[in-house]
Amino acid sequence: MMKSALSLRSIGPAVAPTPTLDFWFEFASPYSCTAAIRIGPLAKAAGIAVRWRPFLLGPIFKDHGWPTSPFNLYPAKGRYMWRDIERICYGLGLPLTQPEPFPQDAVLSARVALIGLADDWGKHFCRAIYRAEFGEGRNIGEQSVIVDILKHLVQDANATLQQSQLDEIKSRLRAETEQARKFGIFGAPSFVTADGELFWGNDRLEAALAWAKH
Amino acid sequence: MMKSALSLRSIGPAVAPTPTLDFWFEFASPYSCTAAIRIGPLAKAAGIAVRWRPFLLGPIFKDHGWPTSPFNLYPAKGRYMWRDIERICYGLGLPLTQPEPFPQDAVLSARVALIGLADDWGKHFCRAIYRAEFGEGRNIGEQSVIVDILKHLVQDANATLQQSQLDEIKSRLRAETEQARKFGIFGAPSFVTADGELFWGNDRLEAALAWAKH
Repeated sequence: MMKSALSLRSIGPAVAPTPTLDFWFEFASPYSCTAAIRIGPLAKAAGIAVRWRPFLLGPIFKDHGWPTSPFNLYPAKGRYMWRDIERICYGLGLPLTQPEPFPQDAVLSARVALIGLADDWGKHFCRAIYRAEFGEGRNIGEQSVIVDILKHLVQDANATLQQSQLDEIKSRLRAETEQARKFGIFGAPSFVTADGELFWGNDRLEAALAWAKH
Repeated sequence: MMKSALSLRSIGPAVAPTPTLDFWFEFASPYSCTAAIRIGPLAKAAGIAVRWRPFLLGPIFKDHGWPTSPFNLYPAKGRYMWRDIERICYGLGLPLTQPEPFPQDAVLSARVALIGLADDWGKHFCRAIYRAEFGEGRNIGEQSVIVDILKHLVQDANATLQQSQLDEIKSRLRAETEQARKFGIFGAPSFVTADGELFWGNDRLEAALAWAKH
């Protein structure tokens, strides 16, 4: 008896594993931008570890027969979205500049983000891309914009850029996009809990965190 | 001087007009259903008068080249919506049954609602339609379902049904749908404030009420 009690004491209290939430985002997506800015503090307060998972919406939109963003295909929807994003950014105290063109070519950003997220500078890079794109209206499809951001985060920005062109990175991004499709993701941002529950949209971030916690 | 002071006193303190919010809804729309259930108590607490404005999404979807609901056209979006509605109804303590067919033919409900909303039984009718459709899975395209509901609200259900077939009612519904399109409405529910601010979706109800108030 005594021994057993001692053993239990030496094991100590059970530690519950940290709940996780997958945050699927697309760099061209305005609502992904506001979610990326909001998710850090909210997840920290909820005690949830977030996995940042960039992917491309283009191939998924093509499944729907959409050659571009639905915000361009359906003008009333597009006008509404920009006004809604303006209200949300105002509420968050964020500057907003509509980037030209919209949607931006986000392939390079997504590839570089995959490298950074496997290292320790990924989240900083993602937020910096969103600030450049939607805060300052810079064109993230331009290599020079990516380099400007990388200079603050890595020793050799050009080496990282070269790495992003490796087949390994390109096929990882394709695999991530395929994984998103398999989860039933059809827009961004989306959130997927460890038990496979899907939430779509910046406005579902709080609900996704609450689900991940229980 | 004395007279002027007396006059002011007899006028009394200025009374601010009650702020208003237009609630645009479509009877076939699941998110319009949850908004219809939620809006009454929330608007009352906020001190806002709500104008209920049924309209038809079909003609607006046709502008987008959609012959039916986008939830049918894009299966991943549809699967997500039903799960999302299930979570929302669970949170509100509401039963949910997916109606067949989806979307339901909502023209008759909308015409009858226009009559009821000009009278004193309109909101009761709208909520009863939504409960029958999404709570019990009844087919609101069937005249008998409408009559069952009307029996509890009006003296002569069949007379109201006949009234709903008058050209005056038919053209009022067409005019309302045209008005919705002019406001830039592309989905339901939508909310429009007195100063023309548009909010889309059940999840924007609180933001719309806050805007209407300030």
